[in-house]
Formats: sequence, C-alpha cells, structure tokens
Amino acid sequence: MKTLLFVILDFYADWESTYLSTAVCQMSKEYIVKTVSLSLDTVNTIGGFKTIPDYSIEDAPQTFAGLFLIGGYTWRQDEAKKVLPLINRAVEQGVPLGAICAASEFIGVHGYLNQVKHTSNGVNSFKEWNDSLYTNDKDYINEQAVSDKNIITANGSAALEFTKECLLALNISTPQGIEEWYQFYKQGYCEFVNQNK
Amino acid sequence: MKTLLFVILDFYADWESTYLSTAVCQMSKEYIVKTVSLSLDTVNTIGGFKTIPDYSIEDAPQTFAGLFLIGGYTWRQDEAKKVLPLINRAVEQGVPLGAICAASEFIGVHGYLNQVKHTSNGVNSFKEWNDSLYTNDKDYINEQAVSDKNIITANGSAALEFTKECLLALNISTPQGIEEWYQFYKQGYCEFVNQNK
Repeated sequence: MKTLLFVILDFYADWESTYLSTAVCQMSKEYIVKTVSLSLDTVNTIGGFKTIPDYSIEDAPQTFAGLFLIGGYTWRQDEAKKVLPLINRAVEQGVPLGAICAASEFIGVHGYLNQVKHTSNGVNSFKEWNDSLYTNDKDYINEQAVSDKNIITANGSAALEFTKECLLALNISTPQGIEEWYQFYKQGYCEFVNQNK
Repeated sequence: MKTLLFVILDFYADWESTYLSTAVCQMSKEYIVKTVSLSLDTVNTIGGFKTIPDYSIEDAPQTFAGLFLIGGYTWRQDEAKKVLPLINRAVEQGVPLGAICAASEFIGVHGYLNQVKHTSNGVNSFKEWNDSLYTNDKDYINEQAVSDKNIITANGSAALEFTKECLLALNISTPQGIEEWYQFYKQGYCEFVNQNK
C-alpha cells in the first residue's frame, strides 16, 4: 500500500480534505490515507468535529506517495513551522504536494511557490504574513486550482478542483475517469444524469 | 447555546457533513455542533479519517435544535435502527431533521417520508431495502435537495444544496445571506468574484 499523508492542524477546514480522502480510497486499492498533526492530541475541525490523527509530525512515515496540507486557522501560528521538514521530504522525494486555502499561503510564504505556477486565496494573501519569502506574483494564476511540477494549490472554495488536480498528479485513474468524478460532484447527480442521458 | 446533533455511523461519507457543520459555526454564535454515534468508539470515515463522537445514542441530549443524519455504509445494517428513537424525538420536537444520501434512504424506508415532499439517491433506492415502509413515490422530487415540513433530504452529491436547505430550515441567516454562501462555494471563489464585480 502507498501512504498518502494529510496534514491537519487544530481548527482545520472540515470540507477541504473530504473529497480527496474519499476519492483516493474509492478509485484505487493501492492507496491508504493517514492523517498527521503536530501531536497525537485530538484535532478540532472548524465545524466542531473531533479527529484523532494517525501520526504526530515526529512519528510520521519517512516515505510516502503524496502530502496534502489542509487549510484552517493554525497555519499562521508559529507552531505550524514544525510541518516544514515534512514538506521538504515531499519535495525531495518528488511526490505530489497539495496545499489548499491557508496551507497554500503557508507554502507560499515559506518559498515553495517561487518556481512554480500556483494559486491561493488571492495574490495578496501572501503579503499579509510576516517575513514572507514569496516573490512570484508573475506565476500567480486566478483559477480554482493549479498544478505545476507536482505542486497543487487551491483556494478555500475549491475542494473539488483541488481533488481533481491531486488525483491527476497521483495518476490514480484515467484523465477521463477523473473528469467524470469531478463533473458528477460539481454538477450534482440530477444535472449530471440529465447531461449524460 | 442551541445544540445541533450530527449522527455519524462507521464509514460515514466524509464530505456530506462538512459544509453544514462549518456554515452553522461560522454564520451564528448561537449554535454548537455535536456528533452522535452508536457508541463512543472512534468512527471511521470512508476516506480514512477517524472521528471521536461527542455522544453515544444512549447519552445524547434529550432536547436539541436540529438533527442531521450523515450518509455512509452503515445505514443498511441492523444496528442503525438504534438511531430511530433520536429521529422520533426530532419529529416530536418539530426541529429540522436532515438526512443525506444513505441516511435519506434510511428515513424513507422507515416511513418518515410518506407525508412530505422529498428526494434521495433516486426513487428506486427505497425499494432496494428489505421491509421498506416507503409508499410515497408521488412526492419524490428529482432535485439535489428538498425541504418540506422541516424534513430535508438530499442525494450524496448534494452536500452544498443539503447545507443550504438546512440553513434555511434553521433560519440561521437571511435567505439572501444563505444564497450568497451557497453561490460562493457552488461557483467557486474565482467565478463568484467575477460575477459580483
């Protein structure tokens, strides 16, 4: 089994991880989803659910097939920097690195988006952080999700588009199969069935 | 604080609860989200996340402001019938009762949709269950989500529409505020900003 790590910090955004976690489990028997947080303590979602992480940063597996950073309220806090070594491992191993919403801002201000096309919650979002290393306005693209050189970024309303680009980067199914999955959820069952009669 | 109960059984559908749980917490300070399962054991999502429920069925609060049943793989198992007393309490108290995906099938086959307009994962989905009490084909509506007499039903691709109808039933904001919330996530940030320039 290939492990996909989802990084969830306290008060993570409930909806941003959920299509991706389910789609990988439903589309492929090769992958297993594991969650990582700063410690093994219960992690709260913004919406009040309580998640038990599988790993702390210290005991997370050293090799994995993809790393996905889920948005939320903690990425601007100093303690979030403990995730940086894991991000470096993803880059070194050349596996897909996905970051949505505040997590895309986080990797931007830490310099990971300076060589790739990317998006986030608006180009100015990188400038609201202290000590930002972000220097790449020219590669900012105003789209729901952007994938370039195995780095996938998305804004906080783009859970479906983020999932689509991550599935493509993981090569988890055919592009057509992934597009159908996306359209089913984007249009919704009623409209999708109607369109495909 | 008014309590909203989310019923999550083992292998619940990750994405179906998440917009609603977040939206109620972000739109109102009056509500608190609590999760209920058959026991206090860890509950798995389809996508491999692990949730700690706040209550078991036995110790769930006797009064609450809304009950939301989240789809997943366990609703067809006999043990799911332990949720019926909680559903009866919601009906007796006249608070919003929401059911999405397999949970909408569950309340249909147990007779709760025989007097209300409703939807689900197709009208035939009610007929695939043993001992179905469902008799109301004529009030089945082929829409993403349907709300009637405080019962909200939706298919499994309709997390956003389910949320919209539940927010309206809870009267949590103005209809316009709720519609804007819905359009932001349905269209996505890029398109929404473009449309509202």
